[in-house]
Amino acid sequence: MRLLLVNPNISDSVSDLIRAEAQRSASPGTQVEVLTAPFGVAYIETRFEALVGAYAAAQVAAEHCSQYDAIVVAAFGDPGLAGLREVMPVPVTGMTEAALASAHLLGHRISIIAISQRIQAWYREVVEGYGFGPRLASIRALDRPISAIGGVQEEHAQALKALAERAVAEDGAEVIILAGAPLAGLARSLHGQLPVPVVDGVSSAVRHAETLAALRPGRALRGSFAPPPAKPHRGLPDAIARLLDTPR
Amino acid sequence: MRLLLVNPNISDSVSDLIRAEAQRSASPGTQVEVLTAPFGVAYIETRFEALVGAYAAAQVAAEHCSQYDAIVVAAFGDPGLAGLREVMPVPVTGMTEAALASAHLLGHRISIIAISQRIQAWYREVVEGYGFGPRLASIRALDRPISAIGGVQEEHAQALKALAERAVAEDGAEVIILAGAPLAGLARSLHGQLPVPVVDGVSSAVRHAETLAALRPGRALRGSFAPPPAKPHRGLPDAIARLLDTPR
Amino acid sequence: MRLLLVNPNISDSVSDLIRAEAQRSASPGTQVEVLTAPFGVAYIETRFEALVGAYAAAQVAAEHCSQYDAIVVAAFGDPGLAGLREVMPVPVTGMTEAALASAHLLGHRISIIAISQRIQAWYREVVEGYGFGPRLASIRALDRPISAIGGVQEEHAQALKALAERAVAEDGAEVIILAGAPLAGLARSLHGQLPVPVVDGVSSAVRHAETLAALRPGRALRGSFAPPPAKPHRGLPDAIARLLDTPR
Amino acid sequence: MRLLLVNPNISDSVSDLIRAEAQRSASPGTQVEVLTAPFGVAYIETRFEALVGAYAAAQVAAEHCSQYDAIVVAAFGDPGLAGLREVMPVPVTGMTEAALASAHLLGHRISIIAISQRIQAWYREVVEGYGFGPRLASIRALDRPISAIGGVQEEHAQALKALAERAVAEDGAEVIILAGAPLAGLARSLHGQLPVPVVDGVSSAVRHAETLAALRPGRALRGSFAPPPAKPHRGLPDAIARLLDTPR
Amino acid sequence: MRLLLVNPNISDSVSDLIRAEAQRSASPGTQVEVLTAPFGVAYIETRFEALVGAYAAAQVAAEHCSQYDAIVVAAFGDPGLAGLREVMPVPVTGMTEAALASAHLLGHRISIIAISQRIQAWYREVVEGYGFGPRLASIRALDRPISAIGGVQEEHAQALKALAERAVAEDGAEVIILAGAPLAGLARSLHGQLPVPVVDGVSSAVRHAETLAALRPGRALRGSFAPPPAKPHRGLPDAIARLLDTPR
Amino acid sequence: MRLLLVNPNISDSVSDLIRAEAQRSASPGTQVEVLTAPFGVAYIETRFEALVGAYAAAQVAAEHCSQYDAIVVAAFGDPGLAGLREVMPVPVTGMTEAALASAHLLGHRISIIAISQRIQAWYREVVEGYGFGPRLASIRALDRPISAIGGVQEEHAQALKALAERAVAEDGAEVIILAGAPLAGLARSLHGQLPVPVVDGVSSAVRHAETLAALRPGRALRGSFAPPPAKPHRGLPDAIARLLDTPR
Repeated sequence: MRLLLVNPNISDSVSDLIRAEAQRSASPGTQVEVLTAPFGVAYIETRFEALVGAYAAAQVAAEHCSQYDAIVVAAFGDPGLAGLREVMPVPVTGMTEAALASAHLLGHRISIIAISQRIQAWYREVVEGYGFGPRLASIRALDRPISAIGGVQEEHAQALKALAERAVAEDGAEVIILAGAPLAGLARSLHGQLPVPVVDGVSSAVRHAETLAALRPGRALRGSFAPPPAKPHRGLPDAIARLLDTPR
Repeated sequence: MRLLLVNPNISDSVSDLIRAEAQRSASPGTQVEVLTAPFGVAYIETRFEALVGAYAAAQVAAEHCSQYDAIVVAAFGDPGLAGLREVMPVPVTGMTEAALASAHLLGHRISIIAISQRIQAWYREVVEGYGFGPRLASIRALDRPISAIGGVQEEHAQALKALAERAVAEDGAEVIILAGAPLAGLARSLHGQLPVPVVDGVSSAVRHAETLAALRPGRALRGSFAPPPAKPHRGLPDAIARLLDTPR
Repeated sequence: MRLLLVNPNISDSVSDLIRAEAQRSASPGTQVEVLTAPFGVAYIETRFEALVGAYAAAQVAAEHCSQYDAIVVAAFGDPGLAGLREVMPVPVTGMTEAALASAHLLGHRISIIAISQRIQAWYREVVEGYGFGPRLASIRALDRPISAIGGVQEEHAQALKALAERAVAEDGAEVIILAGAPLAGLARSLHGQLPVPVVDGVSSAVRHAETLAALRPGRALRGSFAPPPAKPHRGLPDAIARLLDTPR
Repeated sequence: MRLLLVNPNISDSVSDLIRAEAQRSASPGTQVEVLTAPFGVAYIETRFEALVGAYAAAQVAAEHCSQYDAIVVAAFGDPGLAGLREVMPVPVTGMTEAALASAHLLGHRISIIAISQRIQAWYREVVEGYGFGPRLASIRALDRPISAIGGVQEEHAQALKALAERAVAEDGAEVIILAGAPLAGLARSLHGQLPVPVVDGVSSAVRHAETLAALRPGRALRGSFAPPPAKPHRGLPDAIARLLDTPR
Repeated sequence: MRLLLVNPNISDSVSDLIRAEAQRSASPGTQVEVLTAPFGVAYIETRFEALVGAYAAAQVAAEHCSQYDAIVVAAFGDPGLAGLREVMPVPVTGMTEAALASAHLLGHRISIIAISQRIQAWYREVVEGYGFGPRLASIRALDRPISAIGGVQEEHAQALKALAERAVAEDGAEVIILAGAPLAGLARSLHGQLPVPVVDGVSSAVRHAETLAALRPGRALRGSFAPPPAKPHRGLPDAIARLLDTPR
Repeated sequence: MRLLLVNPNISDSVSDLIRAEAQRSASPGTQVEVLTAPFGVAYIETRFEALVGAYAAAQVAAEHCSQYDAIVVAAFGDPGLAGLREVMPVPVTGMTEAALASAHLLGHRISIIAISQRIQAWYREVVEGYGFGPRLASIRALDRPISAIGGVQEEHAQALKALAERAVAEDGAEVIILAGAPLAGLARSLHGQLPVPVVDGVSSAVRHAETLAALRPGRALRGSFAPPPAKPHRGLPDAIARLLDTPR
């Protein structure tokens, strides 16, 4: 099985973290590839940056999708995920959606630990859009500058762990999600150090993508996740244009 | 006062309809300009097409925003609106948001009349994302092929009116929104022919944009609609890059 | 265009504040009149007082509605608004409904700043009844005695501004509504002093009433905002009796 | 124990139905009195009529409350109930609230059978305002003219029973509420004829009022149901003015 | 009238408290009996303990139901209640459901005072399952060890009262429910000492059970509270097997 | 890896179906065991039957849990799942929870196809309790007698497929869950025959249980899924007593 993880941001250092955790999490026989967006921002904190990252992810996924069994949007917040699910020929998931799928099997009230104050509103909107708002105990986030996005989990490891502990003690969190591709692998490092289960997005997305590819539930030909109806378009990147023109 | 309406699609015929209704609706002294997306699809029915339209609208708005007092995303569904609100130096609204602002002053249960079956799921998600789900009586849509997107309101006028009548009679609609830029002006044509108030997105957006510009409520410098924090980026169109680099 | 603003309370000093802000906010060519309730209380903080104010507003509006293009219930909480919308021959809006219509175009999470602790529960019920509960970040209120209701915004200007600042910093407010007719005009005075957009009810209601009158969306002849069915009545004020007996 | 039931409408024939069912339902030792509003409409179907009935009920209750152990607002929809709860010196309940209290002990999904099409929107708002929206299976209503409001349950007995049967068969109703004071006593007549439990508002309100008076849970001195703060008023009926001036 | 209260736990001391309050609350002519579970735990704080208590309560109720007019599940949290309602030949209620039925007639925002930190999550799930989540102001609980479950209300009387006061002052509680059979009777002892109405589960359940038995609303023969369809079973206690085999 | 699937019902024929699909779905290296409840009913359709099945599942799981890496409650509706999660030393999931975890990665609106009319209310409550109510498009169910529970998917294959087709066409289902252990394997048989993805509970539960065991998110030591506090108990089966007495 071959999985493609698309980093919708331009940070190669984050792609390295994603790749390492994806390889640790994948089942035997699964190959993972991580590709980085050719344009965009260093990391997404806002709706506008998500809008840019979604378009970048769409280009990368459109160019490479034919060679993989499933695709992962490898940024928490899942920029572009619902749109990609309409047009991709294989299953697509994202880090937020997958982390929630894991978390809701482990406890009722879920807290998300994030890397910046500003990122919280966007995360909350995404979680609420998936219908998980009532299960969200809290989002807690670092409130300090990030020197280098690829080094955030090392630089702030203690602060991140302390946020998780406060989410349990003060917000009633029964499961912790360590959110954001820059934290990929941190759940594994913290194993046994927190009093509730801990989930991360990359490993969850890799395992759930494998499950979707293995169970072969079938593709949507009806409903809002079927491919978009054919219609005129103009000026789109070739790979996207080809996807939209694919007969179904 | 100068208003910019951005059509996130490539259909000049729809831009013409938008322009005509915007001019009819604007207060004396308001100048309206309508610009058409340089790339994208003919009209948006799906999340993937909205993702493309959002990026196109962002480019157009970024290039021209400095010359206007307010901006309107002139497609129902408001592709990119929340992101643009973060980065634009002036108020931004969209056809869906503005139509709902008008409709909720006229009745409790709101029905939306739309141009295609497929478009309904996307519209519903947008309306629910704005928190108006509980007030949505129904979305009813044409179920026939559209010959030319700019001619849909003429070609299917009777069918559209019949959908509105059924929404009132069967779904309990107390207000009707005629949705989609291709229907701009139809509410005006149907005046007095339906038993409940009728609202359209273009005229609502024009009037509400004027109000926002006139009341000068102030710009967000805190919270999730403040400009995105400065950070590295790469490969973005110049106008977008400039917006992201603007000191605040 | 002629607008009638009905103060459902007996405070002439508040009517003066309403009138001043309404005139500052109205478009050129709009005439505004403010009438004060002939009976009732000084200002509404509770459901019982709202019940009284609703009946008083109904009498005033019934007596004068024939001479205006739109009516505004000029107390935050909108006492009687939904009922008046059924019977009035012209569009009716209220300060809460209109302020929310403005605020939801400016940000997602809305805080309301109010003049007394007791008033908060009633405001919350009204906002939730309109379906805006999920967008309400907080209601914050003065906790000190009010010497004279018409002077509250001068007497407590710093405290009110401080409440707004705390709503932004602690509750995540992205838009502030300065609530209550006694605060009419304060948003204008605070322009540029708060880090998020600020909305007030009177100016919003005036502009939205103008929009409703200008767009002419049509009157409800079906559904729950159509005029009440004819039926026997007894002992009602003449103007109300006439409204109920109007053939439709 | 003495209970006062206030009919907020002017129909003496309906007061007779209320009185008969209240006496059948009351425990031994409970005396019930039913008073009819001195002004208002024949029966409430709309928000405007409810606004009028609320004020009428407030006057009647204010004049007589000192002689009773509990008060019932004896119209489905409970006009004025929340306001009266603030000012009355004894417990107050209403037919809708009480019927829901009974019904939610008998099944999960509740249907309401009503006397007119128009009345449904108001009923739904009241039920949703109480937070019972998610348990409402349906509201079904007669769609024919009512010759005399006091005779509706005789005139349309079969149609009302048929509506209840459809609510069970088609809407999944697990409990039926026969709504409206004009239907007082019908639940008793239909005993054993419907396949799910049947509840009526008058008997429920009488029994729950007795329970509130017997359990003596105490009066609200804090929170939104405490008496309104003292403040200037003008032009109010004497009994209401006295209530507002009562020291607490 | 004969009422059976089933304590789903093994604590005879708690059964004594239940019996005493039930007798104080019952109307003249009502006989109450309290039976204690033959197996289970001392008191239920968790979902697993509720699962055990539900099965124990089912056995007790099945063995004795034929001799009573109504049954009460006498533990807050109502273990097994919805299931028992399907199979019992008489009305069944529980302490949580009944306390909520009383409380919602007395105020809008309800706080629950509980005996242990751990118990709160289970209580919250039950209250939300009944649809009362939006009306729950808070759950506040003792945070100290319980020496003997039957003595908790004496040992911690001041702490429990202080929790109620904080719920009013800090959480906006308008009604207090003193939760848990071990607190049976405490509401009566605290009469007049709290600034909002206070409700307890045992007295509420006794009075509402009497009302259900008196009003005779009829049994469910359709819908999800009708008796379960006949089907093979094996290894069940005789009384339960007999209930399942009863022809209907 | 060793997985235990507990059938909470007494039907060996259904256990055979569960076992077959579990073995087909498991990853290489995973061993699955299916155990059947020693007491209970043939299949669960109601809350009372679920109460019985929960207790039976608890006994089986308590006796065998020490030999497995994860446990699955192998009945749709997940009787006892939340309670078992508190006390079991390894991860536990259930067919409903797991099917929803798969389905929400495949589409927004989910329909459930069930084997009997009566079972629908219970399924709906479970789905809503998990917070997935807003994503439930419909539950559709067979309306004919079941000759033998183990043969229902063969006997009614065409009718079940037709229900799924109607859910897509009429209810807007974007994903189908074939619900109930008696339908284990049917999703696999229908592969490619429905226009939207199809999910079943057994294969989803097996794969998600594997993922939970592989990712090792850690056990809850705090919050509502930590083991119940130690306390007196009496008369419980030995295995359950041992679990409750395990020091933590």
